[in-house]
Amino acid sequence: MIKAGVIGAGGYAGVNLVSLLLRHPEVELKWVVSEEAHKGKKMSELFPHLTDICDLACGTLDDMAKLAKQADVIFLALPHGIALNYVPDILKTGAKVVDLGADYRFNDEAVFKKWYKVEHKDKEVFKSAVFGLPELFKDQIKKAKLIGNPGCYPTASILGAAPLIKQGLVDPSAVMIDAKSGVSGAGRGVKLITLYCERNDGTMAYNVTGHRHMGEVDHILSRLAGGPVATTFVPHLVPQTRGILTTIYGKLKKPAKTAGLMELYKKFYKGQPFVRVYPTPCTKSVWFTNYCDIGVEVNEEKDTVIVTSAIDNLIKGASGQAIQNMNLIFGLDETKGLEQIGVFP
Amino acid sequence: MIKAGVIGAGGYAGVNLVSLLLRHPEVELKWVVSEEAHKGKKMSELFPHLTDICDLACGTLDDMAKLAKQADVIFLALPHGIALNYVPDILKTGAKVVDLGADYRFNDEAVFKKWYKVEHKDKEVFKSAVFGLPELFKDQIKKAKLIGNPGCYPTASILGAAPLIKQGLVDPSAVMIDAKSGVSGAGRGVKLITLYCERNDGTMAYNVTGHRHMGEVDHILSRLAGGPVATTFVPHLVPQTRGILTTIYGKLKKPAKTAGLMELYKKFYKGQPFVRVYPTPCTKSVWFTNYCDIGVEVNEEKDTVIVTSAIDNLIKGASGQAIQNMNLIFGLDETKGLEQIGVFP
Amino acid sequence: MIKAGVIGAGGYAGVNLVSLLLRHPEVELKWVVSEEAHKGKKMSELFPHLTDICDLACGTLDDMAKLAKQADVIFLALPHGIALNYVPDILKTGAKVVDLGADYRFNDEAVFKKWYKVEHKDKEVFKSAVFGLPELFKDQIKKAKLIGNPGCYPTASILGAAPLIKQGLVDPSAVMIDAKSGVSGAGRGVKLITLYCERNDGTMAYNVTGHRHMGEVDHILSRLAGGPVATTFVPHLVPQTRGILTTIYGKLKKPAKTAGLMELYKKFYKGQPFVRVYPTPCTKSVWFTNYCDIGVEVNEEKDTVIVTSAIDNLIKGASGQAIQNMNLIFGLDETKGLEQIGVFP
Amino acid sequence: MIKAGVIGAGGYAGVNLVSLLLRHPEVELKWVVSEEAHKGKKMSELFPHLTDICDLACGTLDDMAKLAKQADVIFLALPHGIALNYVPDILKTGAKVVDLGADYRFNDEAVFKKWYKVEHKDKEVFKSAVFGLPELFKDQIKKAKLIGNPGCYPTASILGAAPLIKQGLVDPSAVMIDAKSGVSGAGRGVKLITLYCERNDGTMAYNVTGHRHMGEVDHILSRLAGGPVATTFVPHLVPQTRGILTTIYGKLKKPAKTAGLMELYKKFYKGQPFVRVYPTPCTKSVWFTNYCDIGVEVNEEKDTVIVTSAIDNLIKGASGQAIQNMNLIFGLDETKGLEQIGVFP
Repeated sequence: MIKAGVIGAGGYAGVNLVSLLLRHPEVELKWVVSEEAHKGKKMSELFPHLTDICDLACGTLDDMAKLAKQADVIFLALPHGIALNYVPDILKTGAKVVDLGADYRFNDEAVFKKWYKVEHKDKEVFKSAVFGLPELFKDQIKKAKLIGNPGCYPTASILGAAPLIKQGLVDPSAVMIDAKSGVSGAGRGVKLITLYCERNDGTMAYNVTGHRHMGEVDHILSRLAGGPVATTFVPHLVPQTRGILTTIYGKLKKPAKTAGLMELYKKFYKGQPFVRVYPTPCTKSVWFTNYCDIGVEVNEEKDTVIVTSAIDNLIKGASGQAIQNMNLIFGLDETKGLEQIGVFP
Repeated sequence: MIKAGVIGAGGYAGVNLVSLLLRHPEVELKWVVSEEAHKGKKMSELFPHLTDICDLACGTLDDMAKLAKQADVIFLALPHGIALNYVPDILKTGAKVVDLGADYRFNDEAVFKKWYKVEHKDKEVFKSAVFGLPELFKDQIKKAKLIGNPGCYPTASILGAAPLIKQGLVDPSAVMIDAKSGVSGAGRGVKLITLYCERNDGTMAYNVTGHRHMGEVDHILSRLAGGPVATTFVPHLVPQTRGILTTIYGKLKKPAKTAGLMELYKKFYKGQPFVRVYPTPCTKSVWFTNYCDIGVEVNEEKDTVIVTSAIDNLIKGASGQAIQNMNLIFGLDETKGLEQIGVFP
Repeated sequence: MIKAGVIGAGGYAGVNLVSLLLRHPEVELKWVVSEEAHKGKKMSELFPHLTDICDLACGTLDDMAKLAKQADVIFLALPHGIALNYVPDILKTGAKVVDLGADYRFNDEAVFKKWYKVEHKDKEVFKSAVFGLPELFKDQIKKAKLIGNPGCYPTASILGAAPLIKQGLVDPSAVMIDAKSGVSGAGRGVKLITLYCERNDGTMAYNVTGHRHMGEVDHILSRLAGGPVATTFVPHLVPQTRGILTTIYGKLKKPAKTAGLMELYKKFYKGQPFVRVYPTPCTKSVWFTNYCDIGVEVNEEKDTVIVTSAIDNLIKGASGQAIQNMNLIFGLDETKGLEQIGVFP
Repeated sequence: MIKAGVIGAGGYAGVNLVSLLLRHPEVELKWVVSEEAHKGKKMSELFPHLTDICDLACGTLDDMAKLAKQADVIFLALPHGIALNYVPDILKTGAKVVDLGADYRFNDEAVFKKWYKVEHKDKEVFKSAVFGLPELFKDQIKKAKLIGNPGCYPTASILGAAPLIKQGLVDPSAVMIDAKSGVSGAGRGVKLITLYCERNDGTMAYNVTGHRHMGEVDHILSRLAGGPVATTFVPHLVPQTRGILTTIYGKLKKPAKTAGLMELYKKFYKGQPFVRVYPTPCTKSVWFTNYCDIGVEVNEEKDTVIVTSAIDNLIKGASGQAIQNMNLIFGLDETKGLEQIGVFP
């Protein structure tokens, strides 16, 4: 059994990670860490749905020196700029690390600093991290010790755009990504903007020109393209708990047809257990699963291509993908512990 | 008092029209017409919230010969292809007509036929219709006898894009419009796709390349531009009752800044009582009002401009705009009967 | 014109009050007061839907000495225990007061203290307050200088139960009131329990045996009965923004029939413009209105009576009722400024 | 492996059953049957979330003669009055039957007829059926060939009330059950009342005095009490997809305290893996699980007891309970295939 620890277990991504790990047939969850205010509290106190299921009490980051040694793999689900203070020491214990935050998603320090305004002290560790999007970087992930687990928006955006970008089918300077997210993406912290009454019936864009995930999307798509890709990424909040739908607009370099691109996408993702290609996916169809469902369509009159991709932001966009990465690192089938069927309706 | 009649009063747009007309200080609602199944039923039976408020019983289209004579203005809220059978006769009675359906939104028969596959028998009447978007065509509306009231998506899309298009600031062949609509846009007819359990938590695109409103948007924007504008318009359903948010993406022909474009928009809509310009509007802020709220932002690094526009699809996108048009035709202040403040939260 | 001021304008009840007052034909809104953090902010900054509509800047409670003199009527929408520090001084200026909080809803000091643990310094003012439920206490309200505006739950509960209680039709020791409220009842303060993701799909009871509104309901129903009425009042949260539905269960003292009780209710509320009696009302039917819709049904086999009553908690349960009270005090028609038709769907 | 067939797979209960059976380690799902309109369609066509997961094509009831022989257990999820035409023949093949409809929930023909107005031809089969509520009738279930799977409301209501009723702690003639259900309880058929726009923000009671589940609740509680129990059961719709919360009100025969009753409940359900007892459960805490969470509280001043119980209406209220029953019949651990942790948030 793989011994696992979760840091940030009191948040929405964290609790989903805990739930998945508890049912993972090859994993034993050894400990959980959360913020100071949760110290000593049982997971079931923070989350009543875990009553009779998880009585682990929360430690804090102060316990890390001790806890790190008790785990083969450690997941961190923290705001950016915190993990980087702990990861180098954790790695020294020999434990593998999957960081669900932003600290290890970039190989390029300048890009990281541009978007996050934080400096890494241990550059070597920073550079050793692998971007944990298995459908694109599986081989590297298998050999990695440290994974920068992709953000929720980038997961849906990059998987949706990758076939077009890699094949060079669209103008790389004019990719528009309109991303719609459920409210859970904003976390469990209390804020005016995530109150029920503020969000119910309230669809809106936010961070229209400066969302950090745009940096992540551009960085990875540029790697895939072998040249600069500049997306206009605009995130939106829609009134639902979970789920991201991205709608990606590209100008085709030469005419194409829907059927042809559907084939291209199916071929591109052949053998990837968590990508399904079919027309106009809905966030509801991937709920509580690790799937990314993708549809692609050509507007022949306008020579534009429209891709829609749907994920559960807390599973494929966070906890599920983290476990998929862990599976790969430990040589397990990547679907292990992630076979659940979506909840419908 | 202006005597008014409403055809299609049993639908969501219709009942909003009825409510607004009942409180309009210069209007007397004389009769309502709905589908065969509603014949003889009181509005308050179809809509319990109208108990003690509206006891008008529904007539049917069979009563039109008689009813048309009893009204100074007649509103039609019908699926496309029906109004065109009644409007020519109605106009002969001298009544003014505001058609909330699609039959009279196009001056160009070929375009109408391309998108709606229906033929107008009375070409003259067809050509006499005025597109009822007051912020752009107020002078024509004032003199009109027949208004083609804009669709909900086109209202938000055209108002959002007009300043850019008219000033020629963006590439007219690459405007992307990502429109998100509440479920009421699909009407009160019972369909699987509009069931609560299918839509709750279910954001999705639909009619990705063939929504008829794309034809309407392109038609009007091309008129504004004085040359072809080709938008890629993709409608989406989001889990809320009312409200449309459109996010419009344009490639700037030359660099611009957010502040400059905000000024441009404010100037463009100066004196228009129902357009408000401020950053990142939310559907909730226009709820139950006739406002179209618009924000504009430039991504300088990408040379793209992003406009978001929010309307209540049943008010500014249908019934409220119809009344605004009626006000203009009858020489009233265009805000008459539309002064209500939005519901929040 | 009646000059009005609103204290607590930054909350959900407050902003609804402001909106209604702004459209009231006999009122001029002179000033608004909110919490320290809102000092100097315009209402439209706190609430974007008020853009171009209300540019009043928020004062604070520190300004009261000055502001009180500039108003004929002052509305307070504050947590309990605060208004009582200001009301006696306000009254001295001659202004009428409608307190939407709990401080002046009880004539009986012992009962107030039992539920709110606060002491009134000025007993005389406390005793002069009138419980502002116009359907039951209209004559007193007309003569009042100080109104204790009923709580949202008590409004729906008391109006629903009053006819049964006053006629002595049910066992007064076994009235069960199951109240379901939208989330806005909990206010605009940020709390874990009112986050979108915690409440969406989350129906639950809370304060099962100790909600303060139970004290208010029992106090008033006992006054009506002329003897002790002991309700078991259980509040619930349901995932919607606005609306309260109460379901009231009574054991009939002697057999009755639905039709008879429907008649009784219609007669009881005859002439009351804001009560409508018809079967099984829905929260949606009273949305954004000052109505209380009531249905009553007898389960003959069980000798029980079931009443359901629906209100908009922020209108009839707060701001609308406050204005209804103001209208009565100032000799206006009680429906003035409250004629809006509900929003549907 | 147990070979299973599902009839009614095109509905919400049916598709949940299919999903759970597909992941049940001891079951092989052999076939699915749905309505005529679904004939030949793959499950993944009816439900996109089953893409790549379930390609079984739907048969119809006409295929039953052939299909019945291919299964060890057959689940029926049909409107009442249909199953009874098929079950006697199915039983002759030796297959076990779990009927999720109402046809086999009553041992008493008069009671069944009173509520459902249908006659059973094969009285023997009717009488052999066991009410499939494992927490109360486990021994009988283990030996059963035919299970009448409880309704969703009765599951939550009976489990919530059973300890009080069995111990005779409350007046059996005055139990009030206020049940709040998500919209999925009304099924996937298209109806005005289940449209998104009609239900969003729309809490209401329905079938206030005549819901059939009241008959089921009374029938079973009376069996438990050994004498007549007469509940006043009132169902409500709340705007959420899944989940039932029942609030049960009882008049205590003699004083009791919350702590004592909590103990009683814990003891009563000791060893039952799917009942959790803790204060004020929320529908969200049991989402997508087979749990019934129960809280109990005493209002000492009023001598009333309030129980709240929460289930997922489609799992513990339908498909999950059906599988729990199957597990018991086939000698498996009753939790087999039902170990999933709830989805939160």
